[in-house]
Amino acid sequence: MVKAVAREPVPARRADAERDIAAILEAGTRLLSADPAAGVAEIAREAGVGSVTLYAHFPTRESLVDAVLDHTVGLADAVIEDDSIDSDPPSEAMEGLLRSSWEVLDRHRRIFLAADRTLPTERIREHHERPLRRVERLIARGRRAGDFRTDLPLQWLVTAFFAIVHSAAQEREAGRLSPGEVEKVLVTTMLSLLRPPPQKRG
Amino acid sequence: MVKAVAREPVPARRADAERDIAAILEAGTRLLSADPAAGVAEIAREAGVGSVTLYAHFPTRESLVDAVLDHTVGLADAVIEDDSIDSDPPSEAMEGLLRSSWEVLDRHRRIFLAADRTLPTERIREHHERPLRRVERLIARGRRAGDFRTDLPLQWLVTAFFAIVHSAAQEREAGRLSPGEVEKVLVTTMLSLLRPPPQKRG
Repeated sequence: MVKAVAREPVPARRADAERDIAAILEAGTRLLSADPAAGVAEIAREAGVGSVTLYAHFPTRESLVDAVLDHTVGLADAVIEDDSIDSDPPSEAMEGLLRSSWEVLDRHRRIFLAADRTLPTERIREHHERPLRRVERLIARGRRAGDFRTDLPLQWLVTAFFAIVHSAAQEREAGRLSPGEVEKVLVTTMLSLLRPPPQKRG
Repeated sequence: MVKAVAREPVPARRADAERDIAAILEAGTRLLSADPAAGVAEIAREAGVGSVTLYAHFPTRESLVDAVLDHTVGLADAVIEDDSIDSDPPSEAMEGLLRSSWEVLDRHRRIFLAADRTLPTERIREHHERPLRRVERLIARGRRAGDFRTDLPLQWLVTAFFAIVHSAAQEREAGRLSPGEVEKVLVTTMLSLLRPPPQKRG
């Protein structure tokens, strides 16, 4: 078996596979952004690949949603501007980070909903490790500067950021938060959470 | 067909079915509390019913987890003391509510994890409608009394409560919060979130 496989034109097949996977992830991102319930067959059609090919790469809908989420978080992470993360006053930098994070999350919120329906929250959080490291860096800097609280664990504040932002995406989709109020609600909520407690202030 | 069924001893069968369902829910609660990955066959064995019987009532593992979550939230809701919800000063009542909610959630946190892996967050939230109405009532009273903030929507503060408490359960299970620190972290976090913003104080 190994010999037979070795005689196949492997590099060309690998290039095909990469092209198919890229097409599937792009189609998946597009369709799940419009409808979190989009099906595997529909995504294969949109990608221009056969079901057999799609299932060869993604044996379950869960694995496809997982890969689409990873793809989207990667794209989102690349466009979030982070020049100000290490320079602006911490509260302003947090406000900027929330606004730019929300902008990309809002655009892809249905992918997050698809992921939420399919994957455990712990897995969704794992996919966000890179963007959350940026959040952690900013909160740590704000704590050193005395602008953010130090009476709660750093990791817990990062978790609260993740929980709050993703709750906002769900509330927005459920119509319990209007598109216009989300950013202000997010900024107010997170800054209240990060502010040092009254007894420790000036 | 209808006639044939009508000749069966329907009331006895209904009593059997109710007893089976009760046994399945109890077994499911017990096993999923120990291991969120507990399987359907294992739960049937523990309940003393056959797989066919279990599948007749719960055709999928998802429907069984859904029913176990509903059962557990109902039990939990019944034991949460709420005498103080309408009488204690709002911040103290919130602290008491967080502590008693956490106590029951901590005991059943693996059922919540099983639910999180199986059901959409929006569905898990639906199951918590009754306990969350109590949270809403308390926050509304605190807002009227001037103890809690009014610059964020009431529903959003209820959502934040749900997100924060459930994040704590996940962090606890993942070992990122130690059992001893969860209650203090929850109380500090929620009271920071509910406190009126500085410019509006005094």
